Amino acid sequence: MTRPVITAFDWVPDFAQGQVRDLRVRWILEEAGRPYDVHYLSQGAQKRSDHRARQPFGQVPTYQDGDLTLFESGAIVLHLAERHGVLLPTDPAGKARATEWLFAALNTVEPPIMDHAVATLFERDEPWSKPRLPAIDARIAERFGEVAARLGDREWYDGAFSIGDLMMVAVLRIMEGSEQLAAHPTLVTYVERGTARPAFHRALAAQLAGFTGKPPAGYAEWVAKGDCA
Amino acid sequence: MTRPVITAFDWVPDFAQGQVRDLRVRWILEEAGRPYDVHYLSQGAQKRSDHRARQPFGQVPTYQDGDLTLFESGAIVLHLAERHGVLLPTDPAGKARATEWLFAALNTVEPPIMDHAVATLFERDEPWSKPRLPAIDARIAERFGEVAARLGDREWYDGAFSIGDLMMVAVLRIMEGSEQLAAHPTLVTYVERGTARPAFHRALAAQLAGFTGKPPAGYAEWVAKGDCA
Repeated sequence: MTRPVITAFDWVPDFAQGQVRDLRVRWILEEAGRPYDVHYLSQGAQKRSDHRARQPFGQVPTYQDGDLTLFESGAIVLHLAERHGVLLPTDPAGKARATEWLFAALNTVEPPIMDHAVATLFERDEPWSKPRLPAIDARIAERFGEVAARLGDREWYDGAFSIGDLMMVAVLRIMEGSEQLAAHPTLVTYVERGTARPAFHRALAAQLAGFTGKPPAGYAEWVAKGDCA
Repeated sequence: MTRPVITAFDWVPDFAQGQVRDLRVRWILEEAGRPYDVHYLSQGAQKRSDHRARQPFGQVPTYQDGDLTLFESGAIVLHLAERHGVLLPTDPAGKARATEWLFAALNTVEPPIMDHAVATLFERDEPWSKPRLPAIDARIAERFGEVAARLGDREWYDGAFSIGDLMMVAVLRIMEGSEQLAAHPTLVTYVERGTARPAFHRALAAQLAGFTGKPPAGYAEWVAKGDCA
């Protein structure tokens, strides 16, 4: 079997280190025990035409295995779960329930968290960002209350740890250390259980070890202007 | 075989009629030729505990078939494609490529479109909404340029019409009639091809026919205060 190749960045700002979405693909590859190679991109290279041939939106990660090239981390994680028979029940109902949590993490829980990241990082200097934050925070709090209510005192969302849990943990941990997550101790321990998995540790270490590149020109000025990174 | 039951609203504002996400589930059920029943909810009922038992976020649609209850329209569409053998290649690579477009529609293309809807409808009176619109519009324009570039002069994204196209058409048509979509004639005709399908017509007619309920108290005042609906 050939080793699949994923794409990842060789540098991202401090606040994004450990959060870039190739982590999710590395994680399931580690859960499946599949070795992989990484094609690293320097900042800016993701928007060039050679990468856009792999990823139409100029993002990472991608996954390439022989003739098959995939983008969208949700689709890659689902494909790998099916291909390697990991983190996904084989009966149609159990599979559908694990998959619904994968979609819920990406489509319902992550959007307000990304909104928060945009408002506090990338658009932090825009006049609309600060006034908008309370509305964003309220939306995050609402979603966290809902996922906590459904989790209850269960270990995972539907029986054994699945791709639904992998993605939900990956999404919730973006807010690790926040008051909003701390308001739900069962979510805090849920994230701790997920990130305690050896496969997660290996995936995170591998992503962090890959940041050997340099910031693009102008980055130091951008940091100096604000209070982050 | 029992008839599955989906949930939908018995009333939504004019701007949302034809756009509520049960349309996507109705569409694939029509493509599969599967009859279904609808459990209608009046506005507000989606947040009650009996519906939250089906849908933890208090949203529609849900899909119930015997013991299986699912939420997240992306997960439901994927499940139905597999269950009924429609709009999804059976080879793993083809299946993964159709699925990646399903995720791309929901996770990469729809978020800025929903941002636009929130800013112009639900948060239209907030002081931050108008100043923020140019940034949202730029993000939509960027995404439309990217999906148009990848579509090229193809009829569908990857061979035959798939769940990836179903979802991409459902997402792009939210912006039907907008300058941003009109800037890409190939996307306009892509949406026209998708919505010309008889299964789409039946799904849309069924959603529209279901709006027999009444607006909640206070809605008339909300409309009068602004310029929409």
